[in-house]
Amino acid sequence: MNVRMESDSLGTKEIPADAYYGIQSARALENFAITGYRLNSFMIGSLAMIKKSCAEANIYVGILDPRIGRAIIAAAEEVMEGRFHDQFVVDVIQGGAGTSINMNANEVIANRAIEILGGRKGDYTLVSPNTHVNMSQSTNDVFPTAIRISALKMAAGLEDALRGLLAALEAKSREFDDVLKVGRTHLQDAVPIRLGQEFAAYAKMIARDRVRLKRSLEELQLINMGATATGTGLNCDVNYALVVTRRLREITGLDLIAASDLVDATQNLDALADVSARLKILALSLSKIANDLRLLASGPRAGLAEINLPPVQPGSSIMPGKVNPVIAEVVNQISFQVAGNDLTIGLAVGAGQLELNVMEPVAAYNLLQSIAILTNGINIFTEKCIRGITANRERCKEYLENSIGVITALNPHVGYEQAAALAHEALVTGKTVRELLREKQIFTDEEIDTIFNVKEMTMPGIAGRRLLKTQPLLP
Amino acid sequence: MNVRMESDSLGTKEIPADAYYGIQSARALENFAITGYRLNSFMIGSLAMIKKSCAEANIYVGILDPRIGRAIIAAAEEVMEGRFHDQFVVDVIQGGAGTSINMNANEVIANRAIEILGGRKGDYTLVSPNTHVNMSQSTNDVFPTAIRISALKMAAGLEDALRGLLAALEAKSREFDDVLKVGRTHLQDAVPIRLGQEFAAYAKMIARDRVRLKRSLEELQLINMGATATGTGLNCDVNYALVVTRRLREITGLDLIAASDLVDATQNLDALADVSARLKILALSLSKIANDLRLLASGPRAGLAEINLPPVQPGSSIMPGKVNPVIAEVVNQISFQVAGNDLTIGLAVGAGQLELNVMEPVAAYNLLQSIAILTNGINIFTEKCIRGITANRERCKEYLENSIGVITALNPHVGYEQAAALAHEALVTGKTVRELLREKQIFTDEEIDTIFNVKEMTMPGIAGRRLLKTQPLLP
Amino acid sequence: MNVRMESDSLGTKEIPADAYYGIQSARALENFAITGYRLNSFMIGSLAMIKKSCAEANIYVGILDPRIGRAIIAAAEEVMEGRFHDQFVVDVIQGGAGTSINMNANEVIANRAIEILGGRKGDYTLVSPNTHVNMSQSTNDVFPTAIRISALKMAAGLEDALRGLLAALEAKSREFDDVLKVGRTHLQDAVPIRLGQEFAAYAKMIARDRVRLKRSLEELQLINMGATATGTGLNCDVNYALVVTRRLREITGLDLIAASDLVDATQNLDALADVSARLKILALSLSKIANDLRLLASGPRAGLAEINLPPVQPGSSIMPGKVNPVIAEVVNQISFQVAGNDLTIGLAVGAGQLELNVMEPVAAYNLLQSIAILTNGINIFTEKCIRGITANRERCKEYLENSIGVITALNPHVGYEQAAALAHEALVTGKTVRELLREKQIFTDEEIDTIFNVKEMTMPGIAGRRLLKTQPLLP
Amino acid sequence: MNVRMESDSLGTKEIPADAYYGIQSARALENFAITGYRLNSFMIGSLAMIKKSCAEANIYVGILDPRIGRAIIAAAEEVMEGRFHDQFVVDVIQGGAGTSINMNANEVIANRAIEILGGRKGDYTLVSPNTHVNMSQSTNDVFPTAIRISALKMAAGLEDALRGLLAALEAKSREFDDVLKVGRTHLQDAVPIRLGQEFAAYAKMIARDRVRLKRSLEELQLINMGATATGTGLNCDVNYALVVTRRLREITGLDLIAASDLVDATQNLDALADVSARLKILALSLSKIANDLRLLASGPRAGLAEINLPPVQPGSSIMPGKVNPVIAEVVNQISFQVAGNDLTIGLAVGAGQLELNVMEPVAAYNLLQSIAILTNGINIFTEKCIRGITANRERCKEYLENSIGVITALNPHVGYEQAAALAHEALVTGKTVRELLREKQIFTDEEIDTIFNVKEMTMPGIAGRRLLKTQPLLP
Repeated sequence: MNVRMESDSLGTKEIPADAYYGIQSARALENFAITGYRLNSFMIGSLAMIKKSCAEANIYVGILDPRIGRAIIAAAEEVMEGRFHDQFVVDVIQGGAGTSINMNANEVIANRAIEILGGRKGDYTLVSPNTHVNMSQSTNDVFPTAIRISALKMAAGLEDALRGLLAALEAKSREFDDVLKVGRTHLQDAVPIRLGQEFAAYAKMIARDRVRLKRSLEELQLINMGATATGTGLNCDVNYALVVTRRLREITGLDLIAASDLVDATQNLDALADVSARLKILALSLSKIANDLRLLASGPRAGLAEINLPPVQPGSSIMPGKVNPVIAEVVNQISFQVAGNDLTIGLAVGAGQLELNVMEPVAAYNLLQSIAILTNGINIFTEKCIRGITANRERCKEYLENSIGVITALNPHVGYEQAAALAHEALVTGKTVRELLREKQIFTDEEIDTIFNVKEMTMPGIAGRRLLKTQPLLP
Repeated sequence: MNVRMESDSLGTKEIPADAYYGIQSARALENFAITGYRLNSFMIGSLAMIKKSCAEANIYVGILDPRIGRAIIAAAEEVMEGRFHDQFVVDVIQGGAGTSINMNANEVIANRAIEILGGRKGDYTLVSPNTHVNMSQSTNDVFPTAIRISALKMAAGLEDALRGLLAALEAKSREFDDVLKVGRTHLQDAVPIRLGQEFAAYAKMIARDRVRLKRSLEELQLINMGATATGTGLNCDVNYALVVTRRLREITGLDLIAASDLVDATQNLDALADVSARLKILALSLSKIANDLRLLASGPRAGLAEINLPPVQPGSSIMPGKVNPVIAEVVNQISFQVAGNDLTIGLAVGAGQLELNVMEPVAAYNLLQSIAILTNGINIFTEKCIRGITANRERCKEYLENSIGVITALNPHVGYEQAAALAHEALVTGKTVRELLREKQIFTDEEIDTIFNVKEMTMPGIAGRRLLKTQPLLP
Repeated sequence: MNVRMESDSLGTKEIPADAYYGIQSARALENFAITGYRLNSFMIGSLAMIKKSCAEANIYVGILDPRIGRAIIAAAEEVMEGRFHDQFVVDVIQGGAGTSINMNANEVIANRAIEILGGRKGDYTLVSPNTHVNMSQSTNDVFPTAIRISALKMAAGLEDALRGLLAALEAKSREFDDVLKVGRTHLQDAVPIRLGQEFAAYAKMIARDRVRLKRSLEELQLINMGATATGTGLNCDVNYALVVTRRLREITGLDLIAASDLVDATQNLDALADVSARLKILALSLSKIANDLRLLASGPRAGLAEINLPPVQPGSSIMPGKVNPVIAEVVNQISFQVAGNDLTIGLAVGAGQLELNVMEPVAAYNLLQSIAILTNGINIFTEKCIRGITANRERCKEYLENSIGVITALNPHVGYEQAAALAHEALVTGKTVRELLREKQIFTDEEIDTIFNVKEMTMPGIAGRRLLKTQPLLP
Repeated sequence: MNVRMESDSLGTKEIPADAYYGIQSARALENFAITGYRLNSFMIGSLAMIKKSCAEANIYVGILDPRIGRAIIAAAEEVMEGRFHDQFVVDVIQGGAGTSINMNANEVIANRAIEILGGRKGDYTLVSPNTHVNMSQSTNDVFPTAIRISALKMAAGLEDALRGLLAALEAKSREFDDVLKVGRTHLQDAVPIRLGQEFAAYAKMIARDRVRLKRSLEELQLINMGATATGTGLNCDVNYALVVTRRLREITGLDLIAASDLVDATQNLDALADVSARLKILALSLSKIANDLRLLASGPRAGLAEINLPPVQPGSSIMPGKVNPVIAEVVNQISFQVAGNDLTIGLAVGAGQLELNVMEPVAAYNLLQSIAILTNGINIFTEKCIRGITANRERCKEYLENSIGVITALNPHVGYEQAAALAHEALVTGKTVRELLREKQIFTDEEIDTIFNVKEMTMPGIAGRRLLKTQPLLP
């Protein structure tokens, strides 16, 4: 392997001659061989956008030689276009609060800028990763800003996914609005409900998650460029922070705003914990829907079988003909992963000390993974599961006709206590509630039809309201 | 013990003759001897307010005999005033989605109403716990509503506590605004900062938590009275939901609103998970502050000792004269408890099935405990710790004068690489940065004073900006 | 209120004249009004046993005046007998690593010893809480030892509960050994199984949890008496540690052993985390069983209804006749609480710093609560749920006869692919597998009976093994 | 792209002509594009070892045509040697309880076996993935067994890492045995300790974690081959389970044992939760050590600075000369990740239903990741941090001489109360304890030397024991 030599304050090291990264990335490669996973393309792109904006701001405020600055900008733009992503070699979990990530970006862009200026990679007298590319910056403002930009960009995909899911759930709620069925509380037969109402409730819950998530994401728009090491803004021109934030807003297309207290913004990651918490609650909601669907689709013959999930693959390597609710199952598993990630993020966020939280890399990795797998999972859930659900109307009807839960409609007419006695008798004798009432001749057939109108039971109101006397208790 | 006999669909049971609770509470007492903890007074009060509102609404819509209704109202008011709280005997953790809690309230109020009507406790032909007290209701609307009212009432105390903490932190940030000190990142000496900036950052973080919490609490204002068993509103007069919600708004003084989809509102607890998540993030913030204070106050002689926490009790049973940061430590422990509670709540919220989440009792218990212990902890933290903090100005100054972190101010003048070499030399020789620069004669004494103005280093700007040449890199 | 005055290094304070606790407990009362919960009787008893053992050891090694020592021993024995428990007033969550708990014990015992010696409460020249009662001790050895003793004592009750549960599950596995039913994987109909096998599997899992828990509890037998403040044993006579440990072993009846490295034993709580982890896994197992039972008992008419859980209370305040699986539900909730407690404990255990983990109080509170509620929950689960379960043999049989899962038995005979085609045909046509095979005439009736012997399907072996040819694949 | 057509019960699909995987893997690729991560080589190798063992067992019991069987064995051996790993294309998180993973293995091995027999990929009449490769198997025994084998193989690396760490900690405990220093409890100066004692305590804790982990791993040796779909063993020859387990034991070199209850072993994942819990506790221990080291190494000038961590990379992109404890920091982050993974695993393990836990894939992924990153992190921690730690003996001595904590040694001589008064005076006056005692003339100089022998203070015993009178309390 051809190599070049690079040095830093700790000594000298061989670097592959064609590498755009440099000695600090190389040290990090050795120090942090942890997960084997690298930064995703959103993070790399965000870093490049930041480096570009900083160079522009530094030229603007007059402390960066424009010739060097323009080379940096050109190099950063190439990274933004997708080049050199393989040169971002450091592990997603690493010590040092992201310094290795920032330096990886600084080195790649410096070396590319050196080439643009006609130099040879490693000749940092032309463009220095620290002095020039990192000018007016610190890892402690660059890395948090990159996380925020990446999260916001990725969250746009999640927002699309959520809108798709919502539309699918709402469509199903309309499609199934006339499917009357047994409601179940405690997994025990309860009063009637419509299948459409169940799907409408799912949609409502997801809609709430979507709004919550949006609000939490807004906090990520606050960035701390210009904070440098501890938020005091040492080494930044007084105009720099505003310029770089404005430039970054334009380049990213995001509503980025400079945080009002940069010391706070540099040391605290609570906004990441908040987004993660909302993702976790979204995951709980998704998991609830997945659980319900798996239960309602259980069978085909020895389960509830009120709905059918679209088959997407044979279910078993041994049981012929078996089809499993695999899409719902993967949604459950994503939910568990997101919950675990949220714990990791909480632990990291809680471990800040004084002017910095050095645990940012693991928080960032987990947050971005949660967004990614939720986005993927929701899209698949919508496409391959929700949209293809069909109702077993016959089964729903059959259960409903046998159910004792409808007896609840008698409460206003005979009181809870007498209704309970009738329910008990129905259970013991195996009779339906109607049969029993007919035998007892408490009500006329017409009255029974009025009280036990199942469809009306699924809407607010007292069935047979007009039959009530002033004093509804039976003697 | 004098007893009376009561019956339900499962049989007959002896009840203490003077008990206001009845057979269902007694069954629950036997079935759920789990924690030994009972409902707090906020929950009991909320249940009573709900029962009162329901009776009023039922009279209003014409399905409850006003004579019975007025007795129920009077009984509920007595509970609201603090009477009969010892009759709420069921355990906080229980099966049945809160049915035992709701029935405990129904029975206590029914028996008291019976007395008011001149009857004897247990004579439910006069006032029935189910038919009358629980009229138009189900555990599945009463219990979630009671949780929400209780949480909102208790959160008002937390809001007060947060305002107090904020004021104390802001006062300290002003008091310490002129205390220059070493900043620390990675627990390693970094660039200068002011102690006041550190406290301002704490205040900012807590202010954010306060806003977030407020927004999440707003969701709790949505209640599902009128949902009955599954949200379909079976057995409620069509006007009932609006009337009861309006009445409950008046009685509680809270901005309660009827949820637009009662099926959703009856089965989903995501709003509880959301409030809990925000409490957890608040706890993380408090824990960060507590950790910092414990670190800054470490010593008195072999620690950082930059600040002093007010002593509140002797620290050790064996080491004479030792004083420990016990208030900060209890804040940390509260934070751990709230995090654990949040996990419990998340697990409960994720366990909903179909029309109901039966795990509500454990979620409610943990949520209300989190609010309570945070309120208590924050008040103590403010009163017994934050307000009494003093700065060790001498120690702060001494550290700062020895620190090498100030060398960062040289970057714009000599470039990162040369500054690093100087830093290395300072560390090895034990000299201060100023001494070294004076020896090297790179800058005049006046220039050195300009560049190393420590106070300016704590504000945005390039120290010695006018000394920069067009090309700031040294040859 | 009559008061006496007490002083410590922070000043003077009024104490209720009849209080056995003293100034340090009083300070703690003010400093830590957090949860409102106090130490349970196991903790108080453990502290008293420790204080007694220490006094005996100190007399034995000759540094404690026997007259004072004997008074301390007498006072401690009174506490062991259940007296003065109301004098243990400090909150379970508190700062100071348990110093307030230890001092509460020291003060109560000192004041009672003073009385025994004829003095007046508060006259610590007769018996000093620190100098005498706490002699050769520190909170840092007393409190961890008290936690361990309490946990071991309480765990004996849990062990009894687990044995009861195991016996009940095993009894059911025998009772239901002949109940053939549909197995379900992914909630989808799978190959046959016996209900007894399901209960045997539950028993096996619980048996494993029991063994694991026992092993983890063994670690709690290692105590650090003689460690004093940091484990170095400063201020203990060289013979003291052995004497006090031996004495404590006798008094408690537990196999307590002196830890070999007292520095380690004083600062690390990993053994608590380990016990908690095992409790959490036990809770997961219990929750799995509870979930299965709730699912198998779902119905009565619109669910699986393969088993019946014994009714223990009416299920609903609105739906007459409804009976819910409330015991199983409370087991689920206990499981969630234990999981949350485990997180809290993990956070506390992870927060140790240098020579001590000051977060012990919250860890102790949660650990002991987990043991208590699991013990209560398991006892109730066994008595009120498992023992009363009955099987719906008819329903089980009916499902099995309709199920397509039995087709798996064809694989060895016709290959997976052809079996899958038959399964598909059965599903589409609604026919049973037997009907279909009879139509196709692939096998004789006798062969079909041999291959589809459902009982044999629930045991290892290839149904119709002798029918297999050398080359089992159909052409 | 050249393609071939494949079919299953859901239809027909194009497969890349050169792919060894088949239609079911291709469906899974589409259904589960979740994380983008694939199985690691341990999992692939384990699956191949299982498939080989099964083919051998099936030939042995006479139900697999030896010609087909030998081709399967040869193909499996090629995978074991590292070939075709790129053909294992399914995502680590997936629905279906691992069916797609098992089928991916079945398809790759079937197609390679087909080639070996001279056929063309996709011609499953020669070798069928289900009928032949998966013969006598189900995903429900293959996948759990593969997880166990992989975890055990990977854990061997972790065991090596732990032994290395232990040796390094023990070496440091010997090297630093004579470094006297201030002990710290509550981060406040306490009684003296030796730096070697601190490292010995770290070693003890890790040794405990190692033993615990070993014991938990032993449970993973229980495998459920022969269980097939639900543990009943349907479709396995009665001798098969023993043969395949014995064969697998030989091939893997692991002490694998057939579980005694295959129904239990098929549905319950508690053993995975248990290993994960132990990994989490190990992570807590590592995190504690990392936290301590970061604190003790804080500085270089404004921190404790009692020890030096070896520098491994420049610490800051902006602060020249700064070196950060990045290795310790990454250990903390790994600890957070492992804790999050443990939560995910717990959620997955808790989600089993009836005969199967379908959430195994996410549990497996997280468990194996935890083992991997702990192994990597511990190795780095040992090599790049622990081994290079040096002590700042001067700083340790300086702190100790100033500390007031030594006053504790006076307790046995003057009682706690008087010692506290002296401590207070020392603090207020700024004098050392020795100076004060000399002034007070309570003890002779010789006595003072005897009592304040700092080295003896770090070992059990009462300093100046012989000076004690019968009644040690001062009048």
